[in-house]
Amino acid sequence: MNIGLFIYNDAEVLDFSGPFEVFSVAKRLGLSHWNVYLISESSQPIRARGGMNVTAHYSIDDVPKLDVLCVVGGEHTATMQNTSVLAWLARVNASTTITCSICTGAFILAAAGVLQRETVTTHWQDLDELKKQFPYLGVVSNKRWVEDGKYVTSGGISAGIDMSLFLVSKLTDMPYAKTVARQMEYEWCE
Amino acid sequence: MNIGLFIYNDAEVLDFSGPFEVFSVAKRLGLSHWNVYLISESSQPIRARGGMNVTAHYSIDDVPKLDVLCVVGGEHTATMQNTSVLAWLARVNASTTITCSICTGAFILAAAGVLQRETVTTHWQDLDELKKQFPYLGVVSNKRWVEDGKYVTSGGISAGIDMSLFLVSKLTDMPYAKTVARQMEYEWCE
Repeated sequence: MNIGLFIYNDAEVLDFSGPFEVFSVAKRLGLSHWNVYLISESSQPIRARGGMNVTAHYSIDDVPKLDVLCVVGGEHTATMQNTSVLAWLARVNASTTITCSICTGAFILAAAGVLQRETVTTHWQDLDELKKQFPYLGVVSNKRWVEDGKYVTSGGISAGIDMSLFLVSKLTDMPYAKTVARQMEYEWCE
Repeated sequence: MNIGLFIYNDAEVLDFSGPFEVFSVAKRLGLSHWNVYLISESSQPIRARGGMNVTAHYSIDDVPKLDVLCVVGGEHTATMQNTSVLAWLARVNASTTITCSICTGAFILAAAGVLQRETVTTHWQDLDELKKQFPYLGVVSNKRWVEDGKYVTSGGISAGIDMSLFLVSKLTDMPYAKTVARQMEYEWCE
């Protein structure tokens, strides 16, 4: 089970750190076959928003096959215009079990043509903009996350934690997801 | 206003990423004079728990004077025996306005002699161990955070987010802290 979180310069810190924590605690508590990877375009360190310097485990050129692909939000506009990243996302999505976004990562998945007519959500400040840029998407508000087929999108920043716990519940079961939340002392907004 | 988060190999990812997010969103929303730094013993990257590779902004030898010192939890035992780090923590604490810990970071502050007889908390799994190792501490349970003079300690992992929002409310005011929580779409456990 390979779970990959795609990050980039000015990605929002909690957008990737929250899900990374959820999945790596799930691994630590008994799912030793889970692998949680950070992926960036190149092998150079990225500078996340606010200035956190993180070195991904893989670049888009050498990452193993992913079962779960997560695209995080932040200052997402440059990535929306990065054709090699968009082509990579579309290619990876063709063989994932689950493809998801956190916060404004939905804009990137939509720009890649991965999200087209699905029901989705994003950060509360960006709901109108997402609808405007991608009018065929069904954009909903006031949800921590939205599931539509194999696609799952979350609301802003911390909602990525809630969505990741939901993904753990899907991939295992609800008691296991609740054990992960308890380990993190997290009040899961189910 | 210099806020420093001390990290180390096998530090828990959300223990530093959660507070980093809170303080950097607080900065972004209007407090441009706030600086949020990650600090590690040397200038080499650290490998946080679960395998996230992070490069701190400063080592303990070159960090600017801190107003707020935060020590994070994780696999904390090696750091509890690192005499140069403990001496640095005690020295920095002498001139901070606020010194705090997240999760099992309380063990490190106690090993450094920074916490001695204060009322404190830590991760729910470690409450008994903290009391056993440091019997003069007043260890309390079922609190997201505990304030005692200039010392603030949080419960496990995600409770560091709640504590950091409390610190924002202390350093600014409650409406500002609520705006930060809203920006993060975080259900603040006040």
